[in-house]
Amino acid sequence: MAPVSDTQYAPVTPKIAEELRGILGSGNVLVDEEKIEAYSHDETDAAEYGHMPEAVVFPLTAEQVAQVVKLANRERIPVTPRGAGSGLSGGAIPQLGGIVVSLEKMNRLLELDKENMVAVVEAGMVTNDLAQTVQDEGLFFAGYPMSLQTCVIGGNIAENAGGGKAVKYGVTGRYVLGLELVTPTGDIVNLGGKLSKDVSGYDLKSLVVGSEGTLGIVTKAIIKLIGYPAAKSDLLVLFKTPKEAIDLVPVILSKGLTPTSIEFMDQLSIITSCRYLNESLPYEKAGAMLLIELDGTNPDQIEMDLIDIGRLCEEKGAIEVYVAEDRNNIERIWNVRRNIAEAFKVFSPVQSLEDIVVPPSRIPEIIPELEKLGKKYRVQIPCYGHAGDGNLHATLVKDPDMSMEEWKKNEVQCLEELYEITEKLGGKISGEHGIGLKRKTFLKELIDPVELDLMKAIKRAWDPNNIMNPGKIFD
Amino acid sequence: MAPVSDTQYAPVTPKIAEELRGILGSGNVLVDEEKIEAYSHDETDAAEYGHMPEAVVFPLTAEQVAQVVKLANRERIPVTPRGAGSGLSGGAIPQLGGIVVSLEKMNRLLELDKENMVAVVEAGMVTNDLAQTVQDEGLFFAGYPMSLQTCVIGGNIAENAGGGKAVKYGVTGRYVLGLELVTPTGDIVNLGGKLSKDVSGYDLKSLVVGSEGTLGIVTKAIIKLIGYPAAKSDLLVLFKTPKEAIDLVPVILSKGLTPTSIEFMDQLSIITSCRYLNESLPYEKAGAMLLIELDGTNPDQIEMDLIDIGRLCEEKGAIEVYVAEDRNNIERIWNVRRNIAEAFKVFSPVQSLEDIVVPPSRIPEIIPELEKLGKKYRVQIPCYGHAGDGNLHATLVKDPDMSMEEWKKNEVQCLEELYEITEKLGGKISGEHGIGLKRKTFLKELIDPVELDLMKAIKRAWDPNNIMNPGKIFD
Repeated sequence: MAPVSDTQYAPVTPKIAEELRGILGSGNVLVDEEKIEAYSHDETDAAEYGHMPEAVVFPLTAEQVAQVVKLANRERIPVTPRGAGSGLSGGAIPQLGGIVVSLEKMNRLLELDKENMVAVVEAGMVTNDLAQTVQDEGLFFAGYPMSLQTCVIGGNIAENAGGGKAVKYGVTGRYVLGLELVTPTGDIVNLGGKLSKDVSGYDLKSLVVGSEGTLGIVTKAIIKLIGYPAAKSDLLVLFKTPKEAIDLVPVILSKGLTPTSIEFMDQLSIITSCRYLNESLPYEKAGAMLLIELDGTNPDQIEMDLIDIGRLCEEKGAIEVYVAEDRNNIERIWNVRRNIAEAFKVFSPVQSLEDIVVPPSRIPEIIPELEKLGKKYRVQIPCYGHAGDGNLHATLVKDPDMSMEEWKKNEVQCLEELYEITEKLGGKISGEHGIGLKRKTFLKELIDPVELDLMKAIKRAWDPNNIMNPGKIFD
Repeated sequence: MAPVSDTQYAPVTPKIAEELRGILGSGNVLVDEEKIEAYSHDETDAAEYGHMPEAVVFPLTAEQVAQVVKLANRERIPVTPRGAGSGLSGGAIPQLGGIVVSLEKMNRLLELDKENMVAVVEAGMVTNDLAQTVQDEGLFFAGYPMSLQTCVIGGNIAENAGGGKAVKYGVTGRYVLGLELVTPTGDIVNLGGKLSKDVSGYDLKSLVVGSEGTLGIVTKAIIKLIGYPAAKSDLLVLFKTPKEAIDLVPVILSKGLTPTSIEFMDQLSIITSCRYLNESLPYEKAGAMLLIELDGTNPDQIEMDLIDIGRLCEEKGAIEVYVAEDRNNIERIWNVRRNIAEAFKVFSPVQSLEDIVVPPSRIPEIIPELEKLGKKYRVQIPCYGHAGDGNLHATLVKDPDMSMEEWKKNEVQCLEELYEITEKLGGKISGEHGIGLKRKTFLKELIDPVELDLMKAIKRAWDPNNIMNPGKIFD
């Protein structure tokens, strides 16, 4: 595939804009620069990833999406699908201009099929709206990420979003039973169904999940639900060293105990967050913390597991084990985890939020490397995240006194080294945020060229005009 | 893609055979007709699916597999990967002759990484050998199918095999964290890793899982393990009607109770199996049975769930609920389920074992349709299978007095109608056995042409010479 350049593509002329208004109605097409500015970026933490679209459209049906995509193919205009714009890798940024297809008006719950325990939803539905609605019926969408208040189902699917509950429940893809997809050439196809098992041909659904909108626009999804786990308890466990904390993970899991979350925080994260919150935990002693959550439908079972895990923690040398069974105390200990990013933003708002994933046993090897990198490049690198699945949000935090120029240079070099270390430990550069724009040059350097070629071959075969979210993941 | 015909391909000449011996050693290449006959068929229940290969090779390394595939590309010779040959859809049959690549000598457990709870295995390892080895360490490979005594990991991956435990544990794909794949052009690539989460580019691993050996030859897999659930209990529940039985499924699941298995048997299956086994259960009263298994690490938890489920069964009108907590009784009630196929083979060995999957709530609608089809085409159609995920092994059993000619005609027509009914109920023609040779003409009639084109586009892009298991799934 030739490198993508703006010159390959045609602009959205007034005539094209008129045609878009014909497809969607004039209220559903924006070309006014002031109004479309909001669609030029996502939540990726760097200004340079923004780029203005030429038009933003708000389809109400899959047929409208298909017509827009057909037009884009005919004219060779880039199309960028967009959910909530809450992504962390630039996937929804219209880097090459063209048309942003915002799914925000396709936000309905189409069906809640309680007999088969599935929900049929439009791609623009806010994840939390789905979660709340099904919870009222005693059901649970277990695949959602931590940003569920703002993100939408279509975006979760595009990124195969993970989150704090993945140890027990896995990631979004596990709950996607079916998809309605507008292909890159503008056909509408339904993949999968209300079916937990299906080997009737290739698993195209799983290929589309996590493809960051480069293989089509998901317009509808059939989501698997499970029983709502009303009972919940948490443990906050303090350890002397990261190694002691991480060594506990397989001990717990191999006993068949399956916590919802096993969250890890290193010393720098703990101290910064606890100070920021004025938290009275004896955090100064802790070289690492685990936050372990259990959930289920039967409080007695949770209680039994809680006791077992607490005992294992103590056997393995934990300094302290705090149990939180009431809502207030659960909130309090999750606050320490949730406020790490915020606490560092107070210190320095310029950051690079990373998303590396390694085999869980290798986490203790990462920590001293981060310390070394931090010193070398004069950045702080707190490390926290999902220990149960080895997914760490190591975050490069700019020294407030550092010039932006120096930061940009150091950031790239530091990330290159961090990713090389990750790769050497058998890891990958993104566990749940995706490649998008932010990581594609790094991916290219690290990935086996054969694997990259296999990806590109699929992209070329499905999107011969390269109009569907071009320039994401790879050029 | 042009229709596949033998004439597109070159034969395995003595010179090619010599070259194969150069790659693999002479002991690892068979061309003698008598010796290669065993590689002309699998377990698919019809003689017409057999076809002789021209050579069978037994590689010891991925490099050897890659060399064979490169040679096959150069000469344009079909390559058919083969695991245990226990498939039920003809996937391992060398329909167009050429070279069968048997993975049976690549059968080692390469690594058991207890810290990360993964096993690294060669594709030809017998599934049960893996299961036993990890069980000795208190670990569990949860993704295996019911044929685990004979099948191999590579075959499980090629078919994305399911089985009786899928309600709780899902199917094979969920436990495949990484693959070593020889691509259709003979490159070796590693996909995934010892990682539970990974969104660093397209999920090619999930695309390869279930692609029936048409997208390359899996030579190695990284398998996720969980804690071994030593405690186990079973319920056998008798109902008046299939509807009453099936209605119970969402009642159980939505309460957050997650049995390992929810197996369904219709009246015809029950009566035939119980008579065959001389079983004293009051089966004559039962219009349908559910066999519900619970497992876990904590016997007290199993006990609590068992009581809850038993109560739900009684509330919902079950005729009888039998509890089996000891090994003997568990065996006894599973025997009823396991011997259905055998019992019908005594009655008539000529059968077509089907694998339809529908939304679980639609199962009661299938049963009367099967009865009608049975009468119309003069076949018996017992229906049993995995109610928890809607996957039913409806089996067409030839009337012993029917001529083979009539059977062949009736079988095809009956299957056509059965698949149409399945499709109308939102189902698919294969839940866990695959399309292979057996169902490809049916798939072609039922699948959305757009979806089929997307599949073929991938196949063409990855396998330009169409040498990798050609003619399977689609032509």
